[in-house]
Amino acid sequence: MMERLRIELGERSYPILIGPGLMDDAGLMDEAVAARDVLVVSNVTVAPLYLGRLERALAGRRVASSVLPDGERHKTLDTVARVLDALVERRMNRDACVAALGGGVVGDIAGFAAACYQRGIDYVQVPTTLLAQVDSSVGGKTGVNHPGGKNLIGAFHQPRAVVSDIGTLASLPPRELRAGLAEVIKYGLVADAGFLGWIEANLDGLLALEPGALVYAVRRSCELKAEVVAEDEREHGRRALLNLGHTFGHAIEAAAGYGEWLHGEAVAAGMLMAADLSRRLGWLDAGDLDRVRGLLARAGLPLAAPPIGAARALALMGMDKKVLAGRIRLVLVRRPGEGVVSGDYPAEALADTLAAHFGSAA
Amino acid sequence: MMERLRIELGERSYPILIGPGLMDDAGLMDEAVAARDVLVVSNVTVAPLYLGRLERALAGRRVASSVLPDGERHKTLDTVARVLDALVERRMNRDACVAALGGGVVGDIAGFAAACYQRGIDYVQVPTTLLAQVDSSVGGKTGVNHPGGKNLIGAFHQPRAVVSDIGTLASLPPRELRAGLAEVIKYGLVADAGFLGWIEANLDGLLALEPGALVYAVRRSCELKAEVVAEDEREHGRRALLNLGHTFGHAIEAAAGYGEWLHGEAVAAGMLMAADLSRRLGWLDAGDLDRVRGLLARAGLPLAAPPIGAARALALMGMDKKVLAGRIRLVLVRRPGEGVVSGDYPAEALADTLAAHFGSAA
Repeated sequence: MMERLRIELGERSYPILIGPGLMDDAGLMDEAVAARDVLVVSNVTVAPLYLGRLERALAGRRVASSVLPDGERHKTLDTVARVLDALVERRMNRDACVAALGGGVVGDIAGFAAACYQRGIDYVQVPTTLLAQVDSSVGGKTGVNHPGGKNLIGAFHQPRAVVSDIGTLASLPPRELRAGLAEVIKYGLVADAGFLGWIEANLDGLLALEPGALVYAVRRSCELKAEVVAEDEREHGRRALLNLGHTFGHAIEAAAGYGEWLHGEAVAAGMLMAADLSRRLGWLDAGDLDRVRGLLARAGLPLAAPPIGAARALALMGMDKKVLAGRIRLVLVRRPGEGVVSGDYPAEALADTLAAHFGSAA
Repeated sequence: MMERLRIELGERSYPILIGPGLMDDAGLMDEAVAARDVLVVSNVTVAPLYLGRLERALAGRRVASSVLPDGERHKTLDTVARVLDALVERRMNRDACVAALGGGVVGDIAGFAAACYQRGIDYVQVPTTLLAQVDSSVGGKTGVNHPGGKNLIGAFHQPRAVVSDIGTLASLPPRELRAGLAEVIKYGLVADAGFLGWIEANLDGLLALEPGALVYAVRRSCELKAEVVAEDEREHGRRALLNLGHTFGHAIEAAAGYGEWLHGEAVAAGMLMAADLSRRLGWLDAGDLDRVRGLLARAGLPLAAPPIGAARALALMGMDKKVLAGRIRLVLVRRPGEGVVSGDYPAEALADTLAAHFGSAA
């Protein structure tokens, strides 16, 4: 039941292959990885599960691996340097390929290393989390964090191919699966009412890891992200829609300390706030809001923000004096399936939303 | 007497401005640097001479500086990280601009930092060496060395503008001026017989830093490099012509230890070897070879390679078994002003050339 989606980017176009068991398909890997020299980048959690299988599917090539520590806190320039060291040590040349085996962090590090090595070599993603399959597969963003901020260092570098083996989701902690579903729901909410309905009808199948449902959800999510990004490859304008829930969610993550809430969980609670503000603007009605809340709740996502108070939440959203002067632009929902980026809302509507979710006390 | 050359790269097109005293021209800097926030990257040798002047010309902006140690051995990822730290520390945003004030090393580091910061911000070059003015200004290559090899880590990132103040050449050590002239001669030799003749007629003016001569030499060199690169932005094919003398020169640099010979000096001696091999192939005649030798000698460039013997030179040129099987491709000279990349020459002609220049003993 493999699905094949082509991301159209002129000479940088690439396929996304989605299905169960793809990692073991040597023929498919031949198509995805043309290079004879491959450096597989993975981490200590994923490598024991899948590195051997991927290496077998890559048989006949010169394959080396770089196994990194697990976790967002290792998404640094130092870790990129380790991958570059591995490429140099193996004397990989410009025709070599980096394969990222793991979640978004591994993909970001490996992709950025591939972007920098000899000013850019091929890389292929083999994402093993739902979040990476529906998010990192499209858009070409690679990079790492700096102590001064997230994703401050990076490059746009498109993969040569993405092989999304949805079989790997069976080894994913359920909490991470649900966080990935938050992103899937996000695509429906900002870009496709029909897909939103499909998710509602198929959520149980998704939670039960039913292959047909997963393949379709991953495929449609990538397709929607690609449509949004295609108009806006270098992030001016429409691409901002993909940040639905992120500004609100950022306040949650910052208040709770990064790592307490998974990113997708914070985005889920943030989407609910964006929907609530959209209702206060008269764009959504009470039924729409209940529908969003109900879907996120069924997906097992936490929706109760920490009670830090509206004022602190506002500060954490980046609402300093400078931003207040121009009003912060938020991703809101005009109607289910149609997101809109807007700074044109009454300040009180935002204040009321924050009070309702973060509490009004300081 | 400012000259203006436009490098045509579609939406990434940019101007190269060439003339004396440009660094003090605030109006020109307004055109070159649109950003309100600027990080000037320089080094401990150049900053005392020019940083204050450049900052005055940038008055009205928020200007910070990052002053690096001088020298190729600091062209590392660690130094790039220092520049990135400075960008983060000053909270520079995506609209900020990096200005590279110095030679090729500063430009390579600053350009790569600009390429990586927030996945790419503007950078402007203010090259203060002849080599950087005629070489680094065109082609978009940025990057740093790795202990395992030169320029292994980097990105293609086009500048927003290049401001070549030829007045800065007065502070350049004469030996570096001559090494820069080697590159100028190279452009004539591979791409423009008319320019080669002009260099012969104007070499004394160039050595005496006559502004009119320098402006024309820089301008024509950039123009020729741009023509070659335009056909081949990402380095397949014709761009290799710009490596005339480099493979031979690499053997000299490696034998002498990097830093003993300036890169341009090694290239000069290497160009003479390439011309000699071209003569052995019947492409140049004895008169042509004398002409090349005479011009390089008048420019004060060293032409006697270290007597390491042909066998060792061959090894240092990268002629291991694998390369020998396919024969190494060299940039040769079909006739003055016309370079050619070829692997199609008798092995004895190469051996004889190496013996003539490096000596035949081991």
